[in-house]
Amino acid sequence: MKRTLQQIADAVGARLLGNGKIEVHAVASLARASAEDLVFVEDNKHLQSALASKAGAVIAGEFASTVAANKPLLISDQPKLAFARAASLLSDNQHYAHEAAVHPTAIVDASAYLEKDVVIGERAVIGAEAAIGEGTTIGAGCVIGRGVKIGKNCLLYPQVTLYPGTSLGDRVIVHAGAVLGSDGFGYVRDRNSGRYEKFPQIGRLVIEDDVEIGANSAIDRGALEETRIGRGTKIDNLVHIGHNCQIGENVIIAAQTGLSGSIVIEQNAVLGGQVGIGEHARVEEGVMLGGQGGVLPNKILRGNGIVFWGTPAQPVREYLKQLATLARIAKK
Amino acid sequence: MKRTLQQIADAVGARLLGNGKIEVHAVASLARASAEDLVFVEDNKHLQSALASKAGAVIAGEFASTVAANKPLLISDQPKLAFARAASLLSDNQHYAHEAAVHPTAIVDASAYLEKDVVIGERAVIGAEAAIGEGTTIGAGCVIGRGVKIGKNCLLYPQVTLYPGTSLGDRVIVHAGAVLGSDGFGYVRDRNSGRYEKFPQIGRLVIEDDVEIGANSAIDRGALEETRIGRGTKIDNLVHIGHNCQIGENVIIAAQTGLSGSIVIEQNAVLGGQVGIGEHARVEEGVMLGGQGGVLPNKILRGNGIVFWGTPAQPVREYLKQLATLARIAKK
Amino acid sequence: MKRTLQQIADAVGARLLGNGKIEVHAVASLARASAEDLVFVEDNKHLQSALASKAGAVIAGEFASTVAANKPLLISDQPKLAFARAASLLSDNQHYAHEAAVHPTAIVDASAYLEKDVVIGERAVIGAEAAIGEGTTIGAGCVIGRGVKIGKNCLLYPQVTLYPGTSLGDRVIVHAGAVLGSDGFGYVRDRNSGRYEKFPQIGRLVIEDDVEIGANSAIDRGALEETRIGRGTKIDNLVHIGHNCQIGENVIIAAQTGLSGSIVIEQNAVLGGQVGIGEHARVEEGVMLGGQGGVLPNKILRGNGIVFWGTPAQPVREYLKQLATLARIAKK
Repeated sequence: MKRTLQQIADAVGARLLGNGKIEVHAVASLARASAEDLVFVEDNKHLQSALASKAGAVIAGEFASTVAANKPLLISDQPKLAFARAASLLSDNQHYAHEAAVHPTAIVDASAYLEKDVVIGERAVIGAEAAIGEGTTIGAGCVIGRGVKIGKNCLLYPQVTLYPGTSLGDRVIVHAGAVLGSDGFGYVRDRNSGRYEKFPQIGRLVIEDDVEIGANSAIDRGALEETRIGRGTKIDNLVHIGHNCQIGENVIIAAQTGLSGSIVIEQNAVLGGQVGIGEHARVEEGVMLGGQGGVLPNKILRGNGIVFWGTPAQPVREYLKQLATLARIAKK
Repeated sequence: MKRTLQQIADAVGARLLGNGKIEVHAVASLARASAEDLVFVEDNKHLQSALASKAGAVIAGEFASTVAANKPLLISDQPKLAFARAASLLSDNQHYAHEAAVHPTAIVDASAYLEKDVVIGERAVIGAEAAIGEGTTIGAGCVIGRGVKIGKNCLLYPQVTLYPGTSLGDRVIVHAGAVLGSDGFGYVRDRNSGRYEKFPQIGRLVIEDDVEIGANSAIDRGALEETRIGRGTKIDNLVHIGHNCQIGENVIIAAQTGLSGSIVIEQNAVLGGQVGIGEHARVEEGVMLGGQGGVLPNKILRGNGIVFWGTPAQPVREYLKQLATLARIAKK
Repeated sequence: MKRTLQQIADAVGARLLGNGKIEVHAVASLARASAEDLVFVEDNKHLQSALASKAGAVIAGEFASTVAANKPLLISDQPKLAFARAASLLSDNQHYAHEAAVHPTAIVDASAYLEKDVVIGERAVIGAEAAIGEGTTIGAGCVIGRGVKIGKNCLLYPQVTLYPGTSLGDRVIVHAGAVLGSDGFGYVRDRNSGRYEKFPQIGRLVIEDDVEIGANSAIDRGALEETRIGRGTKIDNLVHIGHNCQIGENVIIAAQTGLSGSIVIEQNAVLGGQVGIGEHARVEEGVMLGGQGGVLPNKILRGNGIVFWGTPAQPVREYLKQLATLARIAKK
C-alpha cells in the first residue's frame, strides 16, 4: 500500500526533511531496499550506508538532521519505533488475505456470534456460543471451542486450537499451531493403587489485549481458577505455560521457556529462551532472567532491572564470578 | 450434572456427615464456590475457610469429623483424591461435546471400523483400516493414519495427528496438536559424500491404557522395533520422546522434557520439566529427576525414591553441596 | 515391494555372496526378521546372531566375506548405509498413501500451479500462486500459504503450516504439525508508553534440498532478510529457529534445540538436544555442541571436530575438568 512520506511522517510522529510527496510502498533492510522502500538507522555509524542505499527515504534520529542528505529523511527520537510503525502502516496484510468473509468450507455453529468484518478461513471450525469481534481473522483450519470469546482485530494464523471457554482480548495475534486453554498437568495419586487420577482442570484461560503468542506454544487453562496473560505481553514459539499462572503486562517470554503451575510473573519482566520456572515461584516486576535460567518452586526473584542467570537463578554478577572462580581453580 | 451428596459419597468411598439429599452440580475452589459446588480441604488449617465459604459441602479428612460443621462433610482418608473423583462424576464432559456421532464433514475411510458410541469431530480424517473403540471421541481436525488402533473411551482433542500403525489403549487422552508415531531422528552418514541418509523408521508406537499426553507433544515410533508408553503414564505439553524409548507404568514426565532414542524409564519414575536424557540411558524404578536435569547417554540412574538434579544428574544432596561450595569459594 | 538380492546389491553397491535370485520385501531388526527380511551387522561381534536369525539375507562389512554363511551376504564397506538404502528401495511408501491425486476435499486455489504426480491430501489448503513440484505429497490438513514454492518429491506429513512466501527445495520432508515461515520474535519498545510494538517480520524462509524437519518444530522467516536452512540439514522434533538464522549444509539439530535470531551455524556442525544459542552467535564448521549446551549472544565457537558442552559452552575437556574439580572440593 503506497503512502507519501508526508503521510508517514504525520502518522508516526516524525519530522520530515525533504520532498513529502514522494511515495514509498514498503520497508526494507539497507541491503535490499529499492527506491520505493523506506529504511532506518539508529546511529550515525550507519547513516552513510543508508544514504548510499537505493532506499527512497531514511528514518533516522536527530543526529541526521544536520547532514546534507541526498534523499528525504524522517527524523524521530525513536527511529526504530518509527520504522516499525511505518511498516505497519504500509502493510496491507497481504500475508494472510481471504477473499470471502466466511469461507464456504468453514463450519460455524448456528449459535456463534460474529461481528462485522470477521474473516473465517478455509475449514475453520467455530463452536457453539463462540463470539468473535469486529475485524478479527481466523486462519484456515483453526478450531475454536464452545463458548470462546475473541475480541476485535485479532489475527489467528492457521491451525490454532482454542479450548472451550478461552477468552482473548483485542488485537491478539496467535501463530500457527498454538494451543490455548488445554488441560493443566494435575493428578492425584491414589495411595492404595499407586495410580494417578486426573485432578479437575475446569478453570479458564484469559488472554488480555495486544498479546502475541508464537507458533506451537501451549498455554493451559486454570485447574479451578484461571490462567491469565496480561496486556501487551509477547510470547515466542514453543513456550509452555502451566495452569493458574498469572503473567503481568508487557512481559517478554522467549522461545521454549516453560512455566509450571501457579507462577506469577509481574509486569515488565523479561524471560530469555529455554528458561524453566518451578511451581508457585514469583518473578517480580522488571526482573530479567537469562536464557536457560532455572527458578526453583516457591522461589521469589526480585529487583527491577536486575539480571539473573543460571540454575538456580542468581544475580548475574555473582553467577559469573562463580563460573570464573571454578574455571580458575580447575586450571591449577 | 447434578448429584446428591449421598450419591457422591457412595461413589468416591467417603463417609457422609449431614444431609445426603442436598444436590451439588460441580466442584470449585474455596474462593469461587457457590452453594451448588463441592470443595475440599486436606488439612485442619484450611477447614474453617472451607466452612466459611459458600460451598454446599466439603470433602475433608478424618480431622474434620469431630468439628461442629455448618454444612455437610464428606470424610475421606484421601480427600484430594475423593474431590478429583467427585469432579469426574459431576462432569458431563461439556468441554468437548458433539451433536452428531460422526460429523458429516469428517472423512472416514470405508475400510475403517468404528465401534458404537464413537464420536468423530468436524473434518477429522480416519484412514484405511483404522479401528476405533467404543465411546471414543476424535476431535475436530484430527488425522488418524492408516491402520491405527484406538481403544475404548479415549479422548483426542482437536488437531491430533496419529501416524499410520500407531496403537492406543483404552481411556487414553491426547491433547490438541500432539503428534504420535512420527519418524525417529536417525541417519547414516555416507563417508564418501558426507551426506546424511535416512535410516529406516518403520517401527511402531504403542500407547497403553490410561495414558495422557499434553498439547503439542511429539512421540516418535520405533526405528525397526517399537516405542512404548506404559499404562497410566502422564506426559505434559511439548514433550519429545524419541524412537525406541520404553517408558514404564505410572511415570510422570513434565513439560518440555526430551528423551532421545532407546531410553528406558522404569515404572513410577518422575521427570521434572525440561529434563534431557541421552540415548540408551536408563532411569530405574521410582527415581526422581529435577527440572532441567540432564542424563548422559548410556548412563543409569538408580535408587527408588532418590532425587537427582543437575547436568550430569547427581543425587540432589551432593549437587546442592557442590553449588554451596562454589558459592562460598567465589565469595572469598 | 519385493526385490531380488541381486537387484539390491546392484542398487546399493554391495558385493553379493550367495543366491541373488532370493527375494526380500523389507528390512528388519535381528530379533524381528523373517525369511523375507534383510538385516545388517556392522561388526563381527553380531555376525553370528545375524546368521542365526530368521532373516533371508545379511548386509555386512568385509569382515564377513570369509565366513561360512548359511544365507546370502551383501558385503559393503558401509553396511549400515547399504541397509538404509536397501530400506528405501524396498519401501513402497505405504505409510502415507493416497488414492487420488488431489483429494476432492482439498481446497486448491485456481492460481496455484501443480506439476504432475502431485498428491494433495484430505482437506489440505493450497493458497494463491503456490507452486508444487512433481511427485510431491502434501498431507491431510496442511495449510500452504500464498506464493509458497515447493520443489519436487517433497513429503509433507499432515497438519503442516507453511506461511506465505516460504520456499522449499527438492526432497524436503516435513513432519506433522511443523510451522515454517512464522513471524520472528521482534519488537520495539516505546520509551514513552513502555509498550512493545511489532517490528516488521516480512522476510522469507528458504529451505534447501534434502532437508528434513521434525514434528511440531517452528522456523521463523526473516525480519527484513531471509532465514535459510542449508542443503541436507536434518532437524528433529520441537526445534525452534528464529528469524534471520543461516544454517549451513549437512547440519544436525537434535530435538528441542532453540536458536534465537541472526545465528550462523556453519556446515557439518552437530547440535545436541535442548541446546540454546543466543542471537548473533556463530557455530563454525564441524563444531559439535553437547545436549543442553548454551552459547551466549555474539559468541563464536570454532574448531572443526571439537566438542563443546555446558553453559556457557566450553571445550568438553575443560568443562569436564571443572565438574570434576568441583565435585572433589565439595567432598572435602
